[in-house]
Amino acid sequence: MTKDDVAREMRELQDFICNELEILDGVGKFVEDKWERAEGGGGRTRIIESDELIEKGGVNFSEVYGEVTPMMKQNTEITGDTFFATGVSIVLHPNNPYVPIIHMNVRYFEMDNGTYWFGGGIDLTPHYIVPTQAQQFHQELKAICDNFNDAYYPKFKTWADNYFFIPHRNETRGIGGIFFDHLSEDHSISKKEILNFCLTLGREFPKLYGFQANLGRLREFSNNQLSWMHLRRGRYVEFNLVHDRGTKFGLVTGGRTESILMSLPKNASWVYNNVPTEGSNEEATLRLLIKDIDWVNYS
Amino acid sequence: MTKDDVAREMRELQDFICNELEILDGVGKFVEDKWERAEGGGGRTRIIESDELIEKGGVNFSEVYGEVTPMMKQNTEITGDTFFATGVSIVLHPNNPYVPIIHMNVRYFEMDNGTYWFGGGIDLTPHYIVPTQAQQFHQELKAICDNFNDAYYPKFKTWADNYFFIPHRNETRGIGGIFFDHLSEDHSISKKEILNFCLTLGREFPKLYGFQANLGRLREFSNNQLSWMHLRRGRYVEFNLVHDRGTKFGLVTGGRTESILMSLPKNASWVYNNVPTEGSNEEATLRLLIKDIDWVNYS
Repeated sequence: MTKDDVAREMRELQDFICNELEILDGVGKFVEDKWERAEGGGGRTRIIESDELIEKGGVNFSEVYGEVTPMMKQNTEITGDTFFATGVSIVLHPNNPYVPIIHMNVRYFEMDNGTYWFGGGIDLTPHYIVPTQAQQFHQELKAICDNFNDAYYPKFKTWADNYFFIPHRNETRGIGGIFFDHLSEDHSISKKEILNFCLTLGREFPKLYGFQANLGRLREFSNNQLSWMHLRRGRYVEFNLVHDRGTKFGLVTGGRTESILMSLPKNASWVYNNVPTEGSNEEATLRLLIKDIDWVNYS
Repeated sequence: MTKDDVAREMRELQDFICNELEILDGVGKFVEDKWERAEGGGGRTRIIESDELIEKGGVNFSEVYGEVTPMMKQNTEITGDTFFATGVSIVLHPNNPYVPIIHMNVRYFEMDNGTYWFGGGIDLTPHYIVPTQAQQFHQELKAICDNFNDAYYPKFKTWADNYFFIPHRNETRGIGGIFFDHLSEDHSISKKEILNFCLTLGREFPKLYGFQANLGRLREFSNNQLSWMHLRRGRYVEFNLVHDRGTKFGLVTGGRTESILMSLPKNASWVYNNVPTEGSNEEATLRLLIKDIDWVNYS
């Protein structure tokens, strides 16, 4: 299986997901920007802005290659003289505070020295955490993982807890999910199997998100709940701009800024020292933004 | 002059500026949070939220000291075993798009190995750049600088152009101002003189901002202009979270997050690939977000 095969699968995955998400939204349509990278490769950035389900979302495909610059060596794990990277990256910000923000990414790296690996993850950021919904999300992820290897879910769930964490807030970004990197680099799993795992995650993504979205999208909400959503989006911005490795990688290596920052919400808000009132749903959510909750067996 | 003398002057500067800004706003009052740092020192965070001039602003004083941690050594220029740092930091976000965002900071560092320096700066971020106002701002800064040393303004203006720059947008944050760091470290300027320079900047700050604010605060604005303000605030967030050294320093060294992030606006917005229409005021502003404009002699 060549890197071109992987890129083709990733491209088709983008097509599949965009199509499914348009059906789910019901009104919004993706708009595509094709772009080229001067040093090699390019991508297809697809943005949806809908008054229905998804206020602002992006499903990006890219396939970039070329020389490994000193900047990349200093800021990334890329080694060797030339590199190849392809993947699909998704962030969806909904209109309704009762629908969570979702993120997914699957990616493949290959260097001229023969090293290659896969990485990726899915995580959910509810503005209001509903434990039964969080449980459902993690049970579905576990089922997908278990189909490949029983060791995946426990390992990747912990990895996600540690990755999607905002140290300066001492909060997780949301209820986590799975995160993995450098998979198959030591050849302990075949390239075909791990690509298949990534593609399965991607194909299950619209169902996973659809289930969560349909539970919340028709619920009535107040202006206070909208304000809370904007505050939580502020935290999302903080995570992405201060901590997210993919964002940092993109910005320092001269990636296409508008494609990278499609992950930011339409509106975000910051209020000094906001503390939810005791006993509120907002306070209950904050209490659950911690690592190491066993969501699968939550009761 | 001891470090306690410097801290006392900084504390009094905070009092002076808060008092003047309350008069300028006319309605809003600062609310104070006193905080202590477990490892040594603390601060007074003062926040103003007004429906009149300043939608969200902070004027912070801090005086922190203690052991130099490995984290600090790795992420800052602090050397030696113990450090002392004190300063005043200001960011004001106005309600009216015709009033610029303003930032000011003056700070003093001292290490147990005898090294000390002053740093600081003032810069202006108009949502709509009016060249005559930008010129006025720079002429006033130059006059303050020239009173101390003719070499200051040209040097510090260039420094600000380079510091307040967003590489991933290829835009300056605003029209710049002055920025300086490590002043007096080589003892070429006396400690007293450079403290006096910092304090003069601070005392002139309310006048500088008042002049700019009063030109715009009563102007009518449309919803489109409000949206543009929110987009520009998005850029401000990007600069502060991705590039600003003070923000990074604070977040990685375990500073008080709510005090550090007082610099963020109440509302910010991101729209994919927003391009102002040709000939619009928004486009004219973008064209002026570049380095090396000679604002003092602009014509």
